[in-house]
Amino acid sequence: MTQSVTPPLTKADTGSLVIAGLGPGDEAMVTDEVRQALAAATDVVGYIPYVKRIAPRDGLTLHATDNRVEVDRATHALEMAAEGKRVVVVSSGDPGVFAMASAVFEALENGPQDWLDLDIRVLPGITAMLAAAAQLGAPLGHDFAAINLSDNLKPWDLIETRLRAAGAAGFAMAFYNPRSKSRPHQFARALEILREACGPETLISFARDVTKPTQNITTVRLADATPEMADMRTMVIVGNRDTRRIGRHVFTPRYAE
Amino acid sequence: MTQSVTPPLTKADTGSLVIAGLGPGDEAMVTDEVRQALAAATDVVGYIPYVKRIAPRDGLTLHATDNRVEVDRATHALEMAAEGKRVVVVSSGDPGVFAMASAVFEALENGPQDWLDLDIRVLPGITAMLAAAAQLGAPLGHDFAAINLSDNLKPWDLIETRLRAAGAAGFAMAFYNPRSKSRPHQFARALEILREACGPETLISFARDVTKPTQNITTVRLADATPEMADMRTMVIVGNRDTRRIGRHVFTPRYAE
Repeated sequence: MTQSVTPPLTKADTGSLVIAGLGPGDEAMVTDEVRQALAAATDVVGYIPYVKRIAPRDGLTLHATDNRVEVDRATHALEMAAEGKRVVVVSSGDPGVFAMASAVFEALENGPQDWLDLDIRVLPGITAMLAAAAQLGAPLGHDFAAINLSDNLKPWDLIETRLRAAGAAGFAMAFYNPRSKSRPHQFARALEILREACGPETLISFARDVTKPTQNITTVRLADATPEMADMRTMVIVGNRDTRRIGRHVFTPRYAE
Repeated sequence: MTQSVTPPLTKADTGSLVIAGLGPGDEAMVTDEVRQALAAATDVVGYIPYVKRIAPRDGLTLHATDNRVEVDRATHALEMAAEGKRVVVVSSGDPGVFAMASAVFEALENGPQDWLDLDIRVLPGITAMLAAAAQLGAPLGHDFAAINLSDNLKPWDLIETRLRAAGAAGFAMAFYNPRSKSRPHQFARALEILREACGPETLISFARDVTKPTQNITTVRLADATPEMADMRTMVIVGNRDTRRIGRHVFTPRYAE
């Protein structure tokens, strides 16, 4: 009589792909469902600093890449899921907000037909703008727009159009990727547009390394904002005309006229 | 010699007020820091269905109210914190997104000066639009606007202006409180405006009771959307012109022209 053994993971097993949000950095902001997905994973894929947050263990392969081409990383993850592995793609913040989820679906669109049967799930996380807003008080407590200020994947003109439109309609705004070394002049231009569209007295907050030990948060009037207040690790939040301070807090009231 | 004892909680102890997000409904989406705050609370305050999610225990008083006046609830919470209690105000989703955080700061503004010294913190949660987006795929993977469609606290004209502005500038959109019995015609009007501003082929998703056992999600073209597809328990997400389906998923690509 042979001994009963747990069958090895074979190609016949159904693979899965989970795209999970790790939140902004503080481990206490990770949800239970994300922890559970990580505990069940055979493979974790992601950009180096995010994969560094995952504890190594037997049976888990960590695929940390420095590759900035997110669709390549997504394709690799889909390939492994198609081989029967339980793959988790890790994103900081929420994977659906300027992160890995859209890249996975773009890769899925370019892949073989049978990938469409794969078990693919997105697990939300605390996105940087909401972590920053919570640290500040409630600057996004009224209608707001979330804008990626990087022109890597869209023309800069479109970004300018959106800043003007959002400002004119009285939206508060949250900016991801506000400034990089390769395009330092663009954020200066964004501030000019915002001063015109929102008025110089409108409050703007710069939240760097949100929820990390190095967190640094500053709030000034748009009139006093300068481009070097932001870098790629900064979340920028612009209020609407009603946004104001109360004690240590910055908030936007729920009402508008 | 007297025995050393833990001092009782007195008025001299510093009270605190935490405004915590419980996420959309699934307990696995609550963060650890919110659980920890609830475990340390002496008093939990909130709207009945949210307080029902908190397990009773010795030393914890639950204040479930049916009062829709959020500033009254916030004032009560601040009063208890000022008396030295450890108060947690619970919100569904994220407290900073059309929930209790702004109401607390409005109440703080109207309260006595010494409330400004209170220890007040906002703990983010998974907000309904990001939970709905994750269930759908990644419809908010590009620039988007979050709009509260209720005209309780702002004029309906302003909502129309914002729908037109966001549509014209190519934002995807997420709508909170899309439709109530008291204003059934307004959501019909919103759909008209969206068809004009975004084009009839643009996808719109209706996510009711997101992450709850009763969850129901539908995606149609704006041309085929009807007002009764939404009620107050529905999160509505409108894509931009690039938003499309791939297999069971709906996503917005990261790029735009």
